[in-house]
Amino acid sequence: MIIHISDQMDQQGYDLLEKTLTRLSIGFTSVTTQRQQYYVCIPKEPFDIRVIGNLSGVLDVHRVSDPFKLVSSQWKTGRSAIDLGNDVLISDRDFSLMAGPCSIESEKQITAVADFLLSQGIRIMRGGVFKPRSSPYAFRGLGLEGLKLFHGICRTKGIKIVTEVMQVAETEQMAPYVDIFQVGARNSQNFNLLDALGSMDVPVLLKRGISGTIEELLQSAEYIFSKGNEKILLCERGIRTFEPAYRNTFDINAISILKEKSHLPVIADPSHGIGLRKHVGNITMAAFVAGADGAIVEIHPEPERAFSDGQQTLDFNEFSCLHKKIRHLKEAFRK
Amino acid sequence: MIIHISDQMDQQGYDLLEKTLTRLSIGFTSVTTQRQQYYVCIPKEPFDIRVIGNLSGVLDVHRVSDPFKLVSSQWKTGRSAIDLGNDVLISDRDFSLMAGPCSIESEKQITAVADFLLSQGIRIMRGGVFKPRSSPYAFRGLGLEGLKLFHGICRTKGIKIVTEVMQVAETEQMAPYVDIFQVGARNSQNFNLLDALGSMDVPVLLKRGISGTIEELLQSAEYIFSKGNEKILLCERGIRTFEPAYRNTFDINAISILKEKSHLPVIADPSHGIGLRKHVGNITMAAFVAGADGAIVEIHPEPERAFSDGQQTLDFNEFSCLHKKIRHLKEAFRK
Amino acid sequence: MIIHISDQMDQQGYDLLEKTLTRLSIGFTSVTTQRQQYYVCIPKEPFDIRVIGNLSGVLDVHRVSDPFKLVSSQWKTGRSAIDLGNDVLISDRDFSLMAGPCSIESEKQITAVADFLLSQGIRIMRGGVFKPRSSPYAFRGLGLEGLKLFHGICRTKGIKIVTEVMQVAETEQMAPYVDIFQVGARNSQNFNLLDALGSMDVPVLLKRGISGTIEELLQSAEYIFSKGNEKILLCERGIRTFEPAYRNTFDINAISILKEKSHLPVIADPSHGIGLRKHVGNITMAAFVAGADGAIVEIHPEPERAFSDGQQTLDFNEFSCLHKKIRHLKEAFRK
Amino acid sequence: MIIHISDQMDQQGYDLLEKTLTRLSIGFTSVTTQRQQYYVCIPKEPFDIRVIGNLSGVLDVHRVSDPFKLVSSQWKTGRSAIDLGNDVLISDRDFSLMAGPCSIESEKQITAVADFLLSQGIRIMRGGVFKPRSSPYAFRGLGLEGLKLFHGICRTKGIKIVTEVMQVAETEQMAPYVDIFQVGARNSQNFNLLDALGSMDVPVLLKRGISGTIEELLQSAEYIFSKGNEKILLCERGIRTFEPAYRNTFDINAISILKEKSHLPVIADPSHGIGLRKHVGNITMAAFVAGADGAIVEIHPEPERAFSDGQQTLDFNEFSCLHKKIRHLKEAFRK
Repeated sequence: MIIHISDQMDQQGYDLLEKTLTRLSIGFTSVTTQRQQYYVCIPKEPFDIRVIGNLSGVLDVHRVSDPFKLVSSQWKTGRSAIDLGNDVLISDRDFSLMAGPCSIESEKQITAVADFLLSQGIRIMRGGVFKPRSSPYAFRGLGLEGLKLFHGICRTKGIKIVTEVMQVAETEQMAPYVDIFQVGARNSQNFNLLDALGSMDVPVLLKRGISGTIEELLQSAEYIFSKGNEKILLCERGIRTFEPAYRNTFDINAISILKEKSHLPVIADPSHGIGLRKHVGNITMAAFVAGADGAIVEIHPEPERAFSDGQQTLDFNEFSCLHKKIRHLKEAFRK
Repeated sequence: MIIHISDQMDQQGYDLLEKTLTRLSIGFTSVTTQRQQYYVCIPKEPFDIRVIGNLSGVLDVHRVSDPFKLVSSQWKTGRSAIDLGNDVLISDRDFSLMAGPCSIESEKQITAVADFLLSQGIRIMRGGVFKPRSSPYAFRGLGLEGLKLFHGICRTKGIKIVTEVMQVAETEQMAPYVDIFQVGARNSQNFNLLDALGSMDVPVLLKRGISGTIEELLQSAEYIFSKGNEKILLCERGIRTFEPAYRNTFDINAISILKEKSHLPVIADPSHGIGLRKHVGNITMAAFVAGADGAIVEIHPEPERAFSDGQQTLDFNEFSCLHKKIRHLKEAFRK
Repeated sequence: MIIHISDQMDQQGYDLLEKTLTRLSIGFTSVTTQRQQYYVCIPKEPFDIRVIGNLSGVLDVHRVSDPFKLVSSQWKTGRSAIDLGNDVLISDRDFSLMAGPCSIESEKQITAVADFLLSQGIRIMRGGVFKPRSSPYAFRGLGLEGLKLFHGICRTKGIKIVTEVMQVAETEQMAPYVDIFQVGARNSQNFNLLDALGSMDVPVLLKRGISGTIEELLQSAEYIFSKGNEKILLCERGIRTFEPAYRNTFDINAISILKEKSHLPVIADPSHGIGLRKHVGNITMAAFVAGADGAIVEIHPEPERAFSDGQQTLDFNEFSCLHKKIRHLKEAFRK
Repeated sequence: MIIHISDQMDQQGYDLLEKTLTRLSIGFTSVTTQRQQYYVCIPKEPFDIRVIGNLSGVLDVHRVSDPFKLVSSQWKTGRSAIDLGNDVLISDRDFSLMAGPCSIESEKQITAVADFLLSQGIRIMRGGVFKPRSSPYAFRGLGLEGLKLFHGICRTKGIKIVTEVMQVAETEQMAPYVDIFQVGARNSQNFNLLDALGSMDVPVLLKRGISGTIEELLQSAEYIFSKGNEKILLCERGIRTFEPAYRNTFDINAISILKEKSHLPVIADPSHGIGLRKHVGNITMAAFVAGADGAIVEIHPEPERAFSDGQQTLDFNEFSCLHKKIRHLKEAFRK
């Protein structure tokens, strides 16, 4: 059950509400986000919901049978949007494309990508500076200095930044230079990191775990939301299966189902979702028509020379072609 | 290596070819299909391919490094099409929709579906009369009598039939009443059935195994082709994964990759691919934009009363909406 | 619900039983096996089971909530054993070892293996003559002639034969030369083959599907049992997962759970279960302590020269070591 | 390549070694652990290994083709053991049992379990105080205060403690109260946590990821080792598959293969590996015979009342029976 609280609620109202909940033996968690205040309750027994709904200061009350609550569409039927400022908005079916290299490598590389994105009318650039790598001996990214460089160049061009954060200790120092924090697949159930991001006012792009279920992804989003941060993007990036013909199995079903089950925007990551450059475009288009609200695509001026993930990275020309096709699809869908 | 033989090749030519192959210690399989004649060879050592190419009666020779040969696009770069007669053709990107109930139930049901399909301009109807069921106590279909009923009605209306064949013993008796034989996921590696269908002149829609790899699907297609039947449709119907939120994981990656690796048409089965009625439309559209050449969709006048698979079956209205969206997508893609 | 019928039941008894079931709107299937007669019923509504239990000629009645019925331990709590004649018995925890090559290759090979088995006191030899192969161009076995050779040698030595049957058309001709029919993983849901084997009086070793669930395996066994053949061995042979370090993931959990859920003997196939020669022994022992009633192990006089599966095949020395360890474990378990 | 350095190596020796490596264009990482000093090198081209081996202060040099290096058995063929002090040692095939509740709940519960373990001669107790939970609203453990309570009781009884650590920020404050840090499946690729634990002198029990590969587990262990902590236990706890009959698929193959590929001790977690109380014993025994060096088992005075994981937790009587069987198996293996 979600109780939506008016911002006019006074202390007396809170007291009465909590007393009522206690009397009904209903456990509750008070959640205050950037936007609203809620009480999340998990009642053990059925009761007349109007007892709560009629209290002063209560805007509305919804039963939510899903195990996840605040991120469920059972409670909020409208679609949530994420406003990044400067007219950059991620909203329902607008299909925001975010693109950039797997790893930030140099000033020259950042500039080349950023200028290309501007030429395409794209306003969000991805790029990793802290890289999770299976081997401790692999390149692990340029770190905070790389982020500052990335941020410096993009800010002047009006481009927003999405980059991966790997640990609690880095959230605060990264925050001034980041527009969207990305939580990677390996950290999808790093609950301490989710808690930390929940207490910040920076949007979070949350990737599904390597073999995470759809419900686990939504529960992880619930961690962030219930700590106070409503600005969450759900990201499908492919799951691990038995099939050796590609890197991951992009779960197109998950796109459609996440849109049904949650009010949060759903973003596709086709680059990791198939892992093969020549097929990234097809998967991006498929995600769009299945309901995705955006996609995050790996591009690089010279994929063959990329520090990481070159085999799944588009060059500028390939991305332009894809972008054009997406525009045609958008038109078709407006009909 | 595939050697493509001219239909002008005389006995002397065959003798010389086989003698040459033997001299080079190259094992070979002679394949005669409805359309052409080939020699499939698996050479153990490299040799000068022109030795073969220059022989009289040899149209062309191609190296094929894939483990599957005749179905590989390494050999045949153009796309294969399936002509069902009466102007019903399944060809590249034309996105043939095939629709109908999971199980054939009655004359009334067949007529209702067939008339609806005609009203939609759709010329291929699916319907099962032999049903593979996990439990021996479940409904197993109306059998051959059901097929004759199905065929009788559709023939008069100009509608082609696709239906599942489960065993070798039934292929001959079913053939007169069938336009496309469907091989189900559980029989995807029933090699005797594949051999039997390879020696018939009826198109085969071959489903991927429940957790079959893409390569296994293409090898199974190779069984059919190498026995003489070129008329094969590859069908992606979802794979089995850990995710409990839906029935199968529709493998959108496989659509794109099958189109790359083979010249055969690729058909999507979104109904089994997600197993949830409200999402079937999205998956169908995704399959189209990812490159599929058609889709086979479960529909029923009253899905709630279907003998089987009702939860993943569209009603006529839902299907009409989907069909309309597909037409819009086709237009967008023509640009 | 399983109704167990006395062999003294007369026609009047049958009439009364079926009339009673019909009156109670209970659907039923009459099953007569080599051993007993049963009625399998799937009641739609609860009723007083004593109404049936008190009928003359009814030995006992059991509710079975499992989706599989005759193979369920909810009905039969004692363990089923398979008597192959000549004092060769597969029974609870006796851990029958069956061993032999993947493929029957020659008289010399059969004799070498059979003599080795005799020296080890092992009485069941495996060997394939019809081989399911992913590629149509691979070696597909010596066929019926190979089987006759295999049978001829083993019969004189008092060794029983287990071999794979791939299609209905071959069951009758193979039967005189076979002691146990093996159904391979790819045919685990070939329902026509299961039906055919259900109507024969030859034991069946039924392998789990490549990614078949435990319930599906038991349902497939139900097919065989409900057609009249009680002599079934359930075989765990590894499932397909994401892990690339070995061939299949041997499901040790399944061994323990199959023993709980069914009264049928459970056999391990460690050779396919891990696919790596040096680990086959460990997996065999693990299967034993987890509850398996036997194991089927690939051995060959010269694994490096085996026609197929050499990488997972033990030589005679390796098998002897394993056999000795198994004997020690058996002693430990008798304490 | 692993270069093992003598503790007699002087500055001149280091200089010469690094100069030689640089001259040969070999990248290197210097690793100093509690026990030894190593250089880990990843040469790009083949070279004469004796050039390094002959340098003064170099104990030995080994080529390691595995992607993981210091944890590979290609370098160190003897088995590593973990000495916890007070005669508590985890070593090859000694099969150390560690047992205790999923969650630490109360002084009474800790005491009951600890006393029971002592009566069984078991010296390592597991118990969680920081619990990773899918839902933010679930019980998350008693935290640091719970750990102090746990530690206080166990210390006086001579029992060692294994408990999960979830984040870098807690490693320092937990360390004084912990004998073995457990890294949970969800943190198996939390590289920052692995780095932090690598710089401590506390043994680490590292669980395989929910669908982590064997190689990824070993790479994660390499993170810890390469930061200086050699005291690592590898833990197989079941992987996520399609099978719904149990919680996870215990990967018995992984036990056997980890023992082959690494010199580190391998521990089984049968409780999570199957998730069903009545089968935990069978899986534990299977893990032993497949080569495991120990097992970590969930037990509770009253599993039905456990705060978490009750369905997979043994009571004292069940554990005693299992312990007795393990002793019999150990005897059998000594023969």
